[in-house]
This record gives sequence, C-alpha cells and structure tokens, in this order.
Amino acid sequence: MTFLPIITECDNFRPLKDGSLALFYLSLSTPAEDRQLVGLLRPDIVELLVDYNARCSKPAFEIGRSTTNKKAVGFNASVDTPDKRSAVMRELGHRWRDDGLFADVIGGRLWRDELYAVRASPFLGWSPTAPPAFVMERVVCALFGIVTYGVHLTCYTPDYRFWVPRRSKTKQTWPGYLDNTVAGGMPAGLTPFDSILKEAMEEASLPEDFVRQHIKAVGSVTYFFQTPKSHLQPEVQYVYDLCIPDGADIVPKPHDDEVESFELCTVDEVKRGMLAGHFKPNCALVLVDFLIRHGFITAENEPNYLEIITRLHGRFDWDHMHL
Amino acid sequence: MTFLPIITECDNFRPLKDGSLALFYLSLSTPAEDRQLVGLLRPDIVELLVDYNARCSKPAFEIGRSTTNKKAVGFNASVDTPDKRSAVMRELGHRWRDDGLFADVIGGRLWRDELYAVRASPFLGWSPTAPPAFVMERVVCALFGIVTYGVHLTCYTPDYRFWVPRRSKTKQTWPGYLDNTVAGGMPAGLTPFDSILKEAMEEASLPEDFVRQHIKAVGSVTYFFQTPKSHLQPEVQYVYDLCIPDGADIVPKPHDDEVESFELCTVDEVKRGMLAGHFKPNCALVLVDFLIRHGFITAENEPNYLEIITRLHGRFDWDHMHL
Repeated sequence: MTFLPIITECDNFRPLKDGSLALFYLSLSTPAEDRQLVGLLRPDIVELLVDYNARCSKPAFEIGRSTTNKKAVGFNASVDTPDKRSAVMRELGHRWRDDGLFADVIGGRLWRDELYAVRASPFLGWSPTAPPAFVMERVVCALFGIVTYGVHLTCYTPDYRFWVPRRSKTKQTWPGYLDNTVAGGMPAGLTPFDSILKEAMEEASLPEDFVRQHIKAVGSVTYFFQTPKSHLQPEVQYVYDLCIPDGADIVPKPHDDEVESFELCTVDEVKRGMLAGHFKPNCALVLVDFLIRHGFITAENEPNYLEIITRLHGRFDWDHMHL
Repeated sequence: MTFLPIITECDNFRPLKDGSLALFYLSLSTPAEDRQLVGLLRPDIVELLVDYNARCSKPAFEIGRSTTNKKAVGFNASVDTPDKRSAVMRELGHRWRDDGLFADVIGGRLWRDELYAVRASPFLGWSPTAPPAFVMERVVCALFGIVTYGVHLTCYTPDYRFWVPRRSKTKQTWPGYLDNTVAGGMPAGLTPFDSILKEAMEEASLPEDFVRQHIKAVGSVTYFFQTPKSHLQPEVQYVYDLCIPDGADIVPKPHDDEVESFELCTVDEVKRGMLAGHFKPNCALVLVDFLIRHGFITAENEPNYLEIITRLHGRFDWDHMHL
C-alpha cells in the first residue's frame, strides 16, 4: 500500500520540452538579470493575447523572446505599476468571461469576484507588508499559470481523531467530497495567518480567541497541478494544526453554506477515505503531510516515503524547467 | 532576519550546464527505459575510471553515452549483481585510498570502514527488505555523487528547551561544533528507525524502551551539498522528534567519544547559535525544519519561508537536471 497516487493526482504537471509554453514576465524591457517571471502560458493563450493587443488602442502586452530565446510575454513597457497591471488583467478577464471564453474555468458561477495577489518571486522575500506585483481574479490565474495560495487547518483530538467536514452538495467545486477541517484561498491583502483565522470562523465557527491560543503553523505544501483541460495551477498551501485539548468545549460547526456537516474520524477512517477517493484531492494531500509529520506514515510502512515528501514540497523553478 | 543562509550552505549544488558531469548508471547495456541512475561523476573521476579499467584484467566499467547523448558510465555488463558491484567498488576504493588519491576525502582517519547502501531510485519503492543496488564505503560516495542517508533526532522538553550536544574536539569532522541531540549515518542493512535507536543509545545513552515509547518519525530533509573541492554529496536525513515528558528522569549523556557534553538550550539560544554558525551546518538545517514544524518560524516572520521549505525537501532529479 502506498499514498503516492494521492500526491501524483495533485502534482501531475510534467513540463513539455517542445518549447510550446511561453514564459510570462512582468516586463521584457528590463535587463535579463532583473526580469521577473510570474507565470506560464500555453500557445492558445499567447494567441489570445496577440488578439487582445490588436483590439486595444495601445497594446497591453509585449510578445517576444526570453534571453535564452524561449517564447516570452511581458506587460507592455507602459504597464509598469501594480495598479496598471491589475487594471489590464481585470479588463482582460472580464472581456474573456463576457465573450464566453474558457466557460469551464471562468464562466458563470465559477467567477468568484475574489482578488488574488501575484508575486514575482513566488518563494523568496515575501513579507506581510510587501505589495504584490499585481492582483487578479482567482479563477483567471489558471489560464496564466500563476501560483495561487491557500490555507489548510487540521483540527484533531489528543488521541488523534480528526474533525472532517463534508462539502456542501451545492458547492461549485467538489460537491459532497470530504475536506480538511478548514481550507480556503488566500485573498490579496491578507497574510496566511489572517486568512486561516478568517476561514476558521467562516467555515467551522471556531472562535478566534480559541484558534489564536491553540493553532500552530507547521509548514507548507507546494505542488503543480494541471487540469484535465491543460490549465496550469501551481499551488501553495500554508498548513496549520490545531489539537483541541481534552475538556475544551469546542466542536466545529457549519457556519456558511460551504460545509454540510462535521464528523469525528479515526486515523484509519481518514486513511481509508483518502485511498477510496472520498476526499477532495488536495485535502487528502494535506492529510498525507499531517500523517507524515505525526509519525503515522513512516519510512518503514510507506515504500515511496521520500518521493512523497519531496513532491509535497515541489519547487516551481520555471527558469530551470527547460520548457 | 532570515534562516535561508543556513539552507543554502548545505543545499549549494548548482548543476553545471556545460555537459562536463557524467551520469552514473548501474548498466548501459539495459534498454533506455530500464536504465537506473545511481550517481553523478565529475570529469576527473571518469578519467580515473578509464585508468582503472586499463589496469584491470577485465574492465569493470563501461564508458559511453546516455540515451540523450550525455556522457555516461555504467558497470560492465558482467558486473551484474549487487555482490559483484559491491566487490568492484570495494576494490576500487581501497586502491584509490592506498594510492593516496583524494586524501582529503578518503585518506587516513577519514576512512570509516562503514558500508552504505546505494539505491538505484533514491526516492521510490524502498522497503526494509529490498536489497540495495550495491554497498560501498561511506566516504567514497562523495566521489561518485551517490545519495547518502542519515538519521537525526531532536530531544526537547514540553516547554521547548532543546538537548544540544557539543561534538568532541577529536572528531574527524566538525570538532567542537554544536550538533543535534542524536545524529548519524544509516549503515547498510539497518532501517531508519533501527539506525536512530542504535545512535540514540550510542551517542546519548538514551534507553531503547524510553525512545521507542516517545519517539516520533516526522519526515525527512533532502539537500544537495557540494564540498569546497567540488565533491558531490546529495543527502537524505530521516528526521525524528522526541519530547521528554515532565517528570521523566531522562537526561542525554555522552556514551562513546563522539560527544563532549549536553546542554539544555532555549529556542532563542538555539536560534542565536544557528545564526552565529556554532552548529554543524546540516544540524542547523534540521533544526530549521523543527522550528518550522513547531510554529516558531512562520510565513509572517520569515521572508523566505517557502524558499526554505522547498529547498529543505529537494529532489535529486538527475535525469531532469539537464546537466
């Protein structure tokens, strides 16, 4: 038995070596060493950007080559501030949505009206006060191969039973699946810790004081997901644990309409549910990380232990991917 | 303030793109898809293998090309079992040592007489009963870019004070530096858990029953170290935590001659010692992993949080490194 398929379901992007993917920089006008990579573009997206340019009074994008002669796209030299870039992406996102493009990604109820922060260096030099390179609608990120950020919290008892919610049957994504106690995206302007506090109240009715007292930041998981339609979704999840002490009169309860019910599950029930595909895949992935950190999945009982751990913490070295 | 320099000191290998490194396979005669990569060879090592071949009655190695036309080396087709490969590597290691080659790596007191297991797929499909591809002297591994495995245990109190040993002034490596409570290499034939039990007794006089009852496997760290003389040492450390409960009458004590003394240090003392370079570098790296898993280093107080976490769990994708 191995938990590796749970990881490979989420970390399933294998870069094509045919040069068809283009690198998305903030700008192509800056000197090579200062160019900041923000995403990855499929050929059909690049064509749409060429189209989009043609329909603008002033082109919004520059289509060109990277310093290593790969296809590359940047914002036009005049689109040189976070606000201007955000405006371009807002306008473009709305137009594509209204034109009915990628309706399975950004159409109808899928549009969230939720702004995500885009970082130029996804892993380096972040601080709560550092402004993002720009902001854009959450669901549009997958069209540009932009890293999105989320937060996950596992609530459990000292004898290791887990509070597992079932997602509402009316959720746009993964209705009826099992989930982590608390999970959500990280909206622009909030830190990971602020995001998890907010979600803990909204999704599980957990009082802020209690959460602040008992929550523990325990790391992050990072994996590169490609959707069945080839959209690119590199994801970062900041991970938190919360052990509800014996005697604390705290029980997660649905608050908004996202969760149907919470159930207390043993380690074996959770493992069985994960392997049977009852969990939303990236929630199962976060639970694999939990079970490794707490000694339930070990080098001795998991043949692919190192493969799982390293792929749970993947790097998005686009520059080094030799696309 | 950032802990990133502690990681970059250990994870400092940046593959050259000039094609000078050769891929070390078990065999070049097997079909492309079944070829199993075990290491990386610098040009001077390849030359020495050519030399070695010329001095053998039957060549031990095949020097050739990978399927992607990179320089490659494999064992000769007749050297086709773990025992035969181990015999070749033993004979070669002894000869180089006795000839005085790489005296700073394998000479004199540096030779350990300690056999390490070499795995063909370092991260996939390991089990305690699976035989290694071959075994070889620990210190010779760095000449062949072979992954070595170790175990690290952090002992701490419920209020987070750490048992920190000072290495003996007569140790071959890093004399007088601070270390993790228990740390050691993983000899061929032992599982990670067996290795840490053995080291816990040998290095810290921790009783086996107590360790078995309280130890927790919590993951692994993996990083690619290149020595100042360009030797290649990709390393895997299996990581364990042990919280010594209040009232337990257990204090780590030196047992063999490897440790001088143990001291109980606060989180702040440990952080200061790490940043001041008082710890053996890869021990500081394991402590960074601990401080992340236990909520002391967070996304809010560490600007390079994601960079650190992903580099603590590097992959050795030689095949994808485009050397």
